[in-house]
Amino acid sequence: MPKYLPRDSFVTPRFCGVRTFMRLPHVEDLAPDMDFAIIGIPFDGGQSYRSGARFGPEAIRDASILLRPFNAEQKITIFDYISGVDYGDCPVVPGYIEETYKKTEITLRLAADLGIIPVVLGGDHCITLAELRALHQCHGPLGLVHFDAHSDTWDAYFEQKYNHGTTFRRAVEEGLLDPARVIQVGMRGPLYGADDLNAARELGFEVYTTSDLRRIGFKNMVEKIKARVLPGPVFLSFDIDFVDPAFAPGTGTPEVGGVTSWEALELVRGLRGIPFVGFDLVEVLPSYDHAQVTSLLAANIVYEFLTLIAIAKQERSVCTPCPSIPSA
Amino acid sequence: MPKYLPRDSFVTPRFCGVRTFMRLPHVEDLAPDMDFAIIGIPFDGGQSYRSGARFGPEAIRDASILLRPFNAEQKITIFDYISGVDYGDCPVVPGYIEETYKKTEITLRLAADLGIIPVVLGGDHCITLAELRALHQCHGPLGLVHFDAHSDTWDAYFEQKYNHGTTFRRAVEEGLLDPARVIQVGMRGPLYGADDLNAARELGFEVYTTSDLRRIGFKNMVEKIKARVLPGPVFLSFDIDFVDPAFAPGTGTPEVGGVTSWEALELVRGLRGIPFVGFDLVEVLPSYDHAQVTSLLAANIVYEFLTLIAIAKQERSVCTPCPSIPSA
Amino acid sequence: MPKYLPRDSFVTPRFCGVRTFMRLPHVEDLAPDMDFAIIGIPFDGGQSYRSGARFGPEAIRDASILLRPFNAEQKITIFDYISGVDYGDCPVVPGYIEETYKKTEITLRLAADLGIIPVVLGGDHCITLAELRALHQCHGPLGLVHFDAHSDTWDAYFEQKYNHGTTFRRAVEEGLLDPARVIQVGMRGPLYGADDLNAARELGFEVYTTSDLRRIGFKNMVEKIKARVLPGPVFLSFDIDFVDPAFAPGTGTPEVGGVTSWEALELVRGLRGIPFVGFDLVEVLPSYDHAQVTSLLAANIVYEFLTLIAIAKQERSVCTPCPSIPSA
Amino acid sequence: MPKYLPRDSFVTPRFCGVRTFMRLPHVEDLAPDMDFAIIGIPFDGGQSYRSGARFGPEAIRDASILLRPFNAEQKITIFDYISGVDYGDCPVVPGYIEETYKKTEITLRLAADLGIIPVVLGGDHCITLAELRALHQCHGPLGLVHFDAHSDTWDAYFEQKYNHGTTFRRAVEEGLLDPARVIQVGMRGPLYGADDLNAARELGFEVYTTSDLRRIGFKNMVEKIKARVLPGPVFLSFDIDFVDPAFAPGTGTPEVGGVTSWEALELVRGLRGIPFVGFDLVEVLPSYDHAQVTSLLAANIVYEFLTLIAIAKQERSVCTPCPSIPSA
Amino acid sequence: MPKYLPRDSFVTPRFCGVRTFMRLPHVEDLAPDMDFAIIGIPFDGGQSYRSGARFGPEAIRDASILLRPFNAEQKITIFDYISGVDYGDCPVVPGYIEETYKKTEITLRLAADLGIIPVVLGGDHCITLAELRALHQCHGPLGLVHFDAHSDTWDAYFEQKYNHGTTFRRAVEEGLLDPARVIQVGMRGPLYGADDLNAARELGFEVYTTSDLRRIGFKNMVEKIKARVLPGPVFLSFDIDFVDPAFAPGTGTPEVGGVTSWEALELVRGLRGIPFVGFDLVEVLPSYDHAQVTSLLAANIVYEFLTLIAIAKQERSVCTPCPSIPSA
Amino acid sequence: MPKYLPRDSFVTPRFCGVRTFMRLPHVEDLAPDMDFAIIGIPFDGGQSYRSGARFGPEAIRDASILLRPFNAEQKITIFDYISGVDYGDCPVVPGYIEETYKKTEITLRLAADLGIIPVVLGGDHCITLAELRALHQCHGPLGLVHFDAHSDTWDAYFEQKYNHGTTFRRAVEEGLLDPARVIQVGMRGPLYGADDLNAARELGFEVYTTSDLRRIGFKNMVEKIKARVLPGPVFLSFDIDFVDPAFAPGTGTPEVGGVTSWEALELVRGLRGIPFVGFDLVEVLPSYDHAQVTSLLAANIVYEFLTLIAIAKQERSVCTPCPSIPSA
Repeated sequence: MPKYLPRDSFVTPRFCGVRTFMRLPHVEDLAPDMDFAIIGIPFDGGQSYRSGARFGPEAIRDASILLRPFNAEQKITIFDYISGVDYGDCPVVPGYIEETYKKTEITLRLAADLGIIPVVLGGDHCITLAELRALHQCHGPLGLVHFDAHSDTWDAYFEQKYNHGTTFRRAVEEGLLDPARVIQVGMRGPLYGADDLNAARELGFEVYTTSDLRRIGFKNMVEKIKARVLPGPVFLSFDIDFVDPAFAPGTGTPEVGGVTSWEALELVRGLRGIPFVGFDLVEVLPSYDHAQVTSLLAANIVYEFLTLIAIAKQERSVCTPCPSIPSA
Repeated sequence: MPKYLPRDSFVTPRFCGVRTFMRLPHVEDLAPDMDFAIIGIPFDGGQSYRSGARFGPEAIRDASILLRPFNAEQKITIFDYISGVDYGDCPVVPGYIEETYKKTEITLRLAADLGIIPVVLGGDHCITLAELRALHQCHGPLGLVHFDAHSDTWDAYFEQKYNHGTTFRRAVEEGLLDPARVIQVGMRGPLYGADDLNAARELGFEVYTTSDLRRIGFKNMVEKIKARVLPGPVFLSFDIDFVDPAFAPGTGTPEVGGVTSWEALELVRGLRGIPFVGFDLVEVLPSYDHAQVTSLLAANIVYEFLTLIAIAKQERSVCTPCPSIPSA
Repeated sequence: MPKYLPRDSFVTPRFCGVRTFMRLPHVEDLAPDMDFAIIGIPFDGGQSYRSGARFGPEAIRDASILLRPFNAEQKITIFDYISGVDYGDCPVVPGYIEETYKKTEITLRLAADLGIIPVVLGGDHCITLAELRALHQCHGPLGLVHFDAHSDTWDAYFEQKYNHGTTFRRAVEEGLLDPARVIQVGMRGPLYGADDLNAARELGFEVYTTSDLRRIGFKNMVEKIKARVLPGPVFLSFDIDFVDPAFAPGTGTPEVGGVTSWEALELVRGLRGIPFVGFDLVEVLPSYDHAQVTSLLAANIVYEFLTLIAIAKQERSVCTPCPSIPSA
Repeated sequence: MPKYLPRDSFVTPRFCGVRTFMRLPHVEDLAPDMDFAIIGIPFDGGQSYRSGARFGPEAIRDASILLRPFNAEQKITIFDYISGVDYGDCPVVPGYIEETYKKTEITLRLAADLGIIPVVLGGDHCITLAELRALHQCHGPLGLVHFDAHSDTWDAYFEQKYNHGTTFRRAVEEGLLDPARVIQVGMRGPLYGADDLNAARELGFEVYTTSDLRRIGFKNMVEKIKARVLPGPVFLSFDIDFVDPAFAPGTGTPEVGGVTSWEALELVRGLRGIPFVGFDLVEVLPSYDHAQVTSLLAANIVYEFLTLIAIAKQERSVCTPCPSIPSA
Repeated sequence: MPKYLPRDSFVTPRFCGVRTFMRLPHVEDLAPDMDFAIIGIPFDGGQSYRSGARFGPEAIRDASILLRPFNAEQKITIFDYISGVDYGDCPVVPGYIEETYKKTEITLRLAADLGIIPVVLGGDHCITLAELRALHQCHGPLGLVHFDAHSDTWDAYFEQKYNHGTTFRRAVEEGLLDPARVIQVGMRGPLYGADDLNAARELGFEVYTTSDLRRIGFKNMVEKIKARVLPGPVFLSFDIDFVDPAFAPGTGTPEVGGVTSWEALELVRGLRGIPFVGFDLVEVLPSYDHAQVTSLLAANIVYEFLTLIAIAKQERSVCTPCPSIPSA
Repeated sequence: MPKYLPRDSFVTPRFCGVRTFMRLPHVEDLAPDMDFAIIGIPFDGGQSYRSGARFGPEAIRDASILLRPFNAEQKITIFDYISGVDYGDCPVVPGYIEETYKKTEITLRLAADLGIIPVVLGGDHCITLAELRALHQCHGPLGLVHFDAHSDTWDAYFEQKYNHGTTFRRAVEEGLLDPARVIQVGMRGPLYGADDLNAARELGFEVYTTSDLRRIGFKNMVEKIKARVLPGPVFLSFDIDFVDPAFAPGTGTPEVGGVTSWEALELVRGLRGIPFVGFDLVEVLPSYDHAQVTSLLAANIVYEFLTLIAIAKQERSVCTPCPSIPSA
């Protein structure tokens, strides 16, 4: 029986109590009996336009108290199969990207080594590099499902190698990703030049714009994703700007013309059967949100991540963690 | 010729004057020559998450001044067939649900007895119970068309029987509804358990989730609704959270992944020919709205309610009120 | 090689510097080597409901700094073919419509005479009359593609001939438009009477409601537009309320049930091959916007206007300006 | 006994019902048994910076429902001595100042002729000219107590004579004011030139800046005001920008460094014993307000106006209206 | 050495981690080694105007992360003398006041019995009754320092005895307060009648309006408070509407003309030497706040409460709790 | 006669045109005939709590269009004595403090070498180090007038030497300041420990808290400042959080209990006669502002800086720049 459960919202109202994700226990001592851990990385030093994603984890937690344990679309009660905790946030160093990477990797490595699937709340998209580094140590090169309006494969901004627009190029350079199992979906908006998306493709990625997605269809896209990333361990990175600003105004680099919240959720729900070893949801900026529409959507997407973990457990197909690698 | 008409917006600008719904006359003495009455119930003591729906009627009125009398989709000038007033608000007792039920029923009974169709502006969804009680006295068990993200058929919250999540279970228990003529559309979002929607079905309701709605299609859903609720008297209850938070952020228990404003309007427009005896539009929270997007949508939905009344009058198929039952 | 280019956002961050449209040079001396000029008309004295569009140009400029030069949907780097400037704003006379017309026409005439395509940022929709007057002097009667929730062909408000609801009737009366080449798309919302749209049709316009648009389909609508307006010189007027308030809350007379941002962009993108001689984007009200969702969409639509100019230049089909008519 | 009273907030909650000022009866037929009438003038065509004051009257009414009948500072129950109504709004012509003047004067003249003291909710400051014209017909040249950050005595903006910055120069030119009984208090902020305040003084006004006010003291200022305006009939015009933007952010031309809400109320309370024949409160812009702080302050200032009327009635010193002049 | 300490903000940034008050440990098992416990009561069913105070505790916690341990005005490092925890929130029953009282009293009694000083975050002002009941069981009749714009001594609203406007009358009726040691400061705003404040005085309270406070002076008021409430156990209740809406817009029943944040803090700081046995800070409504100005002020006031506890411990004058009374 | 002047707001309305500070010319080629240059540094990588100051320069420029050329308090028309430009923004490197320092120093050095007084719009407070470095090269060790809620003399945050809380310690270590001519005013709020302010004093600074300021009085503080910093060259650094959050909510590390806008302006106005060689206004965060109250105040403070420069020119006492040091 699961050990770590949300509070019962029929006993105390959902708006009662200190905010943890979904009202899960706040436990800072990670342990092997946890299937997943919600981990915040409140860093926004990599943002090239609006800043403020450091308050993303708090906002997502606050909105998540509306979530309930039965996923009616996937027909599963999450906590019948898995249990997990809200770890809180990794320490970060405001204004210093590389130092932040070092600090956050420690926690993420620990989680991965214990066989805990990290479910990360950003922060801006630069943080994914730290996650991939930590998971790579445990799982080797990873497949990637990447939902985003931007491919984040630029080489540098203002001569600097690390920020939220260069993450996936760095990850390839560091050997963290298996480019043949990387798929990016949702690119849109004006670009700097015709080569911008080609650059991602030259890295070996499969890339679909939002236009492509609409033309191909959501169900077909799910099949393309599965065909691309199976069978190895996979990371799922979801930038909230994949969704249209009407549904997710609180983000750092909004691009109009995105998908709806329903479409986004359907895509994630379709990814049953993929052996995910980590997830993140990034680029929520509460200072540009209103009525929590962005953070509530983010919380629901994270909820679908947890459901995918539960389904995987139910189907006994979860990727086995690496017991032999000691934590730092 | 209709007696109660909106002000002419070619004579005075729409933003001129004390706010009544659609700039209709504010008349507190209900009379048999009124086809409908707009009645606010500014109560939010039944809300289990965000509170603030007590300011819903004011916000809807304020947004409604943009409405014009010709419904271009339904091709009818409303006031060629019906006339009605803005009654103002029922007295309520903040923080006391059952006392509020008693007070509001008096006004609603009076309207029903006079053959006036009440068009209620909420307030939270608990108020519908008072409306159903009043209309039941006059019409007997009612059919129900219920658009909502939640079925509101829980048994109790925190051991209390009355709040915005238990309304329709209470209504069945009190014999106010004819379950065989009840249809609920739009349920979505995480649930407490697998039985949540089954519970509504066990009450005898026909229930469709938002997923069902998308799969079945909007036109087909209109047919299913008609097949379900005809031929008896029917109540239409519209919780604004049926619509996605991008289109209706100002609500108490938002669920992402809902329908668009256009889809919602189309559903309501499709309900021509149903003998409605009452309507409500609930759960508008202005303190979470911005730029009136929620209240403007709510005002337009209420406008479609009025159009349905006008069409019914035009078609001479309106349900005859019960003249013999005295008011309280 | 183009002379007037945006700043390079790899050299300085996009949020750096005085706000001009797309970070283009701010040049007040119009010259024949400019293909286009961004011109603001910060006037809102014609608004019949909410006021505040005078701050529209500033808001659109501020949001436009996110734009990049390669249009990935149209597969063209804009500034490979055209160059242009941000002229700044025309002088206006707050509260005095007719005086504002006179002042703004001077600048617009100058631009037109120099063969510069004016791309105007409103301001409310009354300003289009000044633009049409200026362009008519140069090009003769114009075709019109008009995206809007309202046809703006009323005769008068409160006995006054000039405001944002009468623009296109006045334009016909003044002979500025060729009604046989006018098409209006997007009308929706309640009307004053059954004759409202007929009135536009009686002026000789082809009119499609948002319902019509959905039924006919976006691709077909593009064909209908082309069939209507070709081959002569055409003006494109885009009222942001054409789009649904969820995607464009910051506007003066919002109507629920509109198209999405994606649909709007697709319509504009479809208009390749039409010899446009002028554009405007009107009715952005920043005081009702949030997180720039409206102004960012507006900036993207203007960006599609620039792309249409670039494509036309690329295809060498741009309408030749009239060199012989002297400026005022 | 007073005939027109607010609703009793112990019977129905204050947030119940159609919004009228202080929950007073909404009566459009002015009658001699009314001591005062609340009259909105929702016009903002005179604003030289931000627009939006047309929604001021609605916002002030909405905030006024918090007011209660006993003025604890002045120790008087207002409605023991006077009664009055909320008339609603004068018709206005958006975008046309002079036409608006004509229309509004009709109502204001009617009120004045009936001996009803008009208490006007703006609207921008240009509307005061219409009020002074109407009252002058009845009372002859008026004294003026004017609280404002600006003296509004410029000659013209952009060659136009009528807007919110020229009102009091026009009033002098038209003979509506007795300059020897005019006092302006609160001027502050940068000016166009050294002559700006001198210009007001050259019109014969007594002018005090906010600096002067602080130096002289609030009690002494009350004495200076009384010394200046007595004994004849006096008009009180209060521009909400007299108060600091921290206390009144929702206004059209904010100037930092103003007085507090408490100081403003104290000044108005001090004006007992002056025979006021009319009042206005102008320049409230709800689209720039938040949490109603501006409109709530405005409502309280208007409440102090009503108290001054009640005190005058109590002291039987109210200026007798002119029974002999027929209304238009 | 204190056992329960805030996290060190030089090790992790203040915006890092799950939000507890001041980053204190979140401990739900109350124990005798705690000097104080922060306890939220997220209930707003007693609000007679705006609702939404149920989100007050979360907002105050979120703002409190900016607080640092050394009180520079009082010259004391709080945690050199005391330690304590953030308990989280008491369970409440939305919409049911009396049931909420019962549930919250259990926790509050437990705290009091263990000698822990409860520092309560509201919620609306009705919750103070539960606190006084719990503390009275332990300490007998209490003195009261009450900062508020309203005396909250009405007898009933709409015939109901329990809401946020009747708390202190009920408390007297139940014998919870020693009226001779009760002092209320800050009353202002319009009243229902001349008897409103007299009613509080007839209960035996000493009452000062905001006007009185300004006239008497802040230092003198501190002396009056001490003279009134010493030497017995005292409760401090602080309604955030004591402060002006410019400094605290996010509240339920705002009254203009209040004190500044600085003045409020100075008053609380002055209360050194009073043997407080409990504190609350109520009526924070985040849905009407902006930029956290209200919740940040609230957090600072609570911080001054903690400082008073620390000073009392330092001075060894804290009221000894009652060890003999068993908890429920 | 001045060469660089603001546009005339009687010719075009103030809301017309591309936003530069005070509508000054936007000139990127600095030249010796400029007395001052407005220079933005849109960097926020040094913020330890809220981020977003990178949008500060744009917001201040946008608000500054309300300013007029005659300073009525100082009785001087600024541009009778000086002229200057809006340079735009220095290039920055988001997320990289030290690289940003290098880039910004180039521009600032150039200005200083040309004898142009830089008037900098932040950006967070870390940027002042770059300014001091540039000015020190030209003027040698500087005196400092520093208005702020925080002394910004911590040694490090999270082991990093550069951020907005360490600026003035670094400046002393680098020899940029003459500690004997440094004065800090306004410190308040909770601190990490008793040594926090002592640390500033140990650096040799004279430090006054907000409490000190209120006790000593504003006029006396002006005298203390002059006594401290004269006669050498002085820098004035104004952190907007010196002012209370009610008057300046849009800032990164707000502290309640600050001074009013009026008090802040009076302090700056008092500094006539000090030979200032540079100014900055930092920590404006538009994403937390509303109705521009913060940015409008910031613009007015910068306006007082310009006035001080004009007065100095008028009095011929401005510090002569160093002609001999070549620019980088």
